[in-house]
Amino acid sequence: MKVIDGGINAPIGFEAAGIEAGIKYENRKDMAIIYSQKPCVAAGTFTSNIVKAAPVKWDMDIVNNSPYAQAVIVNTGIANAGTGREGMEYCKETAETAASELGIPANAVLVGSTGVIGAQLPIDRIRAGVKKLASARSNDRQSGTDASKAIMTTDTVNKELAVALEIKGRTVTIGAMSKGSGMIHPNMCTMLGYVTTDAKISKETLTKILKEDVVDTYNMISVDGDTSTNDTLLVLANGMAENEEIIEGTPEYEEFKEALHYVNETQAKRLAGDGEGANALIECKVINADTKENARILAKSVICSSLTKAAVFGHDANWGRILCALGYSGGRFDPEKMELYYQGTSGSMLIYKDGAGTDYSEEEASKLLSEKEVRFLVNVKMGDASAIAWGCDLTYDYVKINADYRS
Amino acid sequence: MKVIDGGINAPIGFEAAGIEAGIKYENRKDMAIIYSQKPCVAAGTFTSNIVKAAPVKWDMDIVNNSPYAQAVIVNTGIANAGTGREGMEYCKETAETAASELGIPANAVLVGSTGVIGAQLPIDRIRAGVKKLASARSNDRQSGTDASKAIMTTDTVNKELAVALEIKGRTVTIGAMSKGSGMIHPNMCTMLGYVTTDAKISKETLTKILKEDVVDTYNMISVDGDTSTNDTLLVLANGMAENEEIIEGTPEYEEFKEALHYVNETQAKRLAGDGEGANALIECKVINADTKENARILAKSVICSSLTKAAVFGHDANWGRILCALGYSGGRFDPEKMELYYQGTSGSMLIYKDGAGTDYSEEEASKLLSEKEVRFLVNVKMGDASAIAWGCDLTYDYVKINADYRS
Repeated sequence: MKVIDGGINAPIGFEAAGIEAGIKYENRKDMAIIYSQKPCVAAGTFTSNIVKAAPVKWDMDIVNNSPYAQAVIVNTGIANAGTGREGMEYCKETAETAASELGIPANAVLVGSTGVIGAQLPIDRIRAGVKKLASARSNDRQSGTDASKAIMTTDTVNKELAVALEIKGRTVTIGAMSKGSGMIHPNMCTMLGYVTTDAKISKETLTKILKEDVVDTYNMISVDGDTSTNDTLLVLANGMAENEEIIEGTPEYEEFKEALHYVNETQAKRLAGDGEGANALIECKVINADTKENARILAKSVICSSLTKAAVFGHDANWGRILCALGYSGGRFDPEKMELYYQGTSGSMLIYKDGAGTDYSEEEASKLLSEKEVRFLVNVKMGDASAIAWGCDLTYDYVKINADYRS
Repeated sequence: MKVIDGGINAPIGFEAAGIEAGIKYENRKDMAIIYSQKPCVAAGTFTSNIVKAAPVKWDMDIVNNSPYAQAVIVNTGIANAGTGREGMEYCKETAETAASELGIPANAVLVGSTGVIGAQLPIDRIRAGVKKLASARSNDRQSGTDASKAIMTTDTVNKELAVALEIKGRTVTIGAMSKGSGMIHPNMCTMLGYVTTDAKISKETLTKILKEDVVDTYNMISVDGDTSTNDTLLVLANGMAENEEIIEGTPEYEEFKEALHYVNETQAKRLAGDGEGANALIECKVINADTKENARILAKSVICSSLTKAAVFGHDANWGRILCALGYSGGRFDPEKMELYYQGTSGSMLIYKDGAGTDYSEEEASKLLSEKEVRFLVNVKMGDASAIAWGCDLTYDYVKINADYRS
């Protein structure tokens, strides 16, 4: 597997576009399309929030019941959540407009929205936007980037990625785009993440791989502990690479799985590192746990701790807060036996062992905490399971962004 | 029951003091004593954090195994958590010093610490402080206030309270002092809370009342979602009111329980409203739930949501964040049936019903969100259970305080 230049439309047969539709703000791209020249099998994971946005409900229905999918229409500015029956009607109208423009069935059109909860979509602008998208779609490099920019809200950078791997002599490509960056605490997947591939693979196999992978990637990040109403991760596979079909139990299955994992992990980390107001990515790795699930619980608690996040912002080696967050996580460990390390490009420091802090240098520790990627390693000495979680520091800007988000 | 002027030493036979011991900072009171002229039955609830501070372990042992308790010594500045065997030794030395000064057994001395995790106590200063406290203790009004000030850390105001009630012709008094104000997400009780009473009541009855009450008071507040390593709530009863013993199943039992509930709820709300950096107390009341536990889960999720807290700071009626927090709470409700109201001194506004926002006035809503107490009422229309949770807004000052807490 290798990383290649490209984004969501890198795989064969995929086209994309990002345009200005004036949904909420002027002078910025706010609608995107992903289109496949051939029908795709679709797999998806969606928010576990009881309050599901209308587009989440629409997409769940398509993924579960449609024979295939062929396009995705996304808008930012308004989340189409908490919008009742009117909101569902707008999903349908969006899909129908796209279907008519693209010459495909409406139940092959997935939709996605992100932005303010509670407001209704300006459906006339959406319809006009869909028409612009349908004629702007292209497989050129810039169009993929345009699409990835059009789905941004408070993100500071667009997040796209492409990888290629060989499946028995055929090149299979995977493309992706995602956006954060607040209300990020995915539980079954993230705010909005899209993955395309030209791999030939069945819906069942693709779904299995995706569901296994999100628990270690998108579900292991958090910006603010708030699980969104709109979380959606979709994977579309159109088979145009003409590889021999990827079947479970083969080396090709493992290679494809590994490539998709790389794509999901990379995008998830980018979301965490570009969390609202963030200066640094925080990574917590728990090793030698008794079970994978216990390792996940412990690691995630640390990156969710407001106090730990604020201490990283202040470059303050206040390791007691990490110990505290491990302690209230609900996970198991022995505080007398565990060890905590700070890690970074300038080295690795043992901070805590045998139930107490070590005689570490505050200055050196603060230096590690000043890096763009701050890493905590927790050795719980119970078994051989491990997990990694990713978050970001808590800054003035997080408060600023969210105290006047709607204004 | 009536609220009276007074604090932790208001009940008959209780003395208190707060003094400067120079534990970590200069020129501020940082050690407190509570002393009872007669032995007390003691009840306590302690942090559920796996990482328990040394004084928590010490107090759990005293509450569970000592025949009685008679004094509490508290220090701020250093939490004596993550301090290994040395930390436990310091608890013992503190108790032994107090015992020798006060002429009581060491296993009648409870200890409490709050402050930075990981540092060791300066035991010489602690010993000197205990001696000062032993001679300064008094039942005058000012000494109670001094004690409540000496246990403050980032609190902006001291939190003391006293109430009196009649038990068959005898006046029974309850006094209290508590401190917050970060790492507040109590799970079995709060950071540090002390309650005294001259009521005659058995240890078993007092323990039962306390354990039932904390689930609706201290366990329903949160400042930042971080459950401390040091959470301790202690109630001492010395029987000096000479009332007929309070027995379960009597009207007097209900009256005493109600009075203790008032004390705990008031102190808990004060902790939430004085959370680190807070401008406003946030209250979320869930009514007509199917079970009390479900109501608690829903209410608490709202006051813990960073995005909801930031929106209150910005006086932004971004109700979608409340809906979102209810949705990911793990509790049950139907988003199509529930109703959400904003409430304040200037009235009550219906914000959301039938699955969508109402046609409310943004200006009026923003006015309600500008009050010092911001109240959300959630009617889930499922049954007749209700619960209230309390938190505070998320402000720049929370980040500021916690980005350089140790410096």
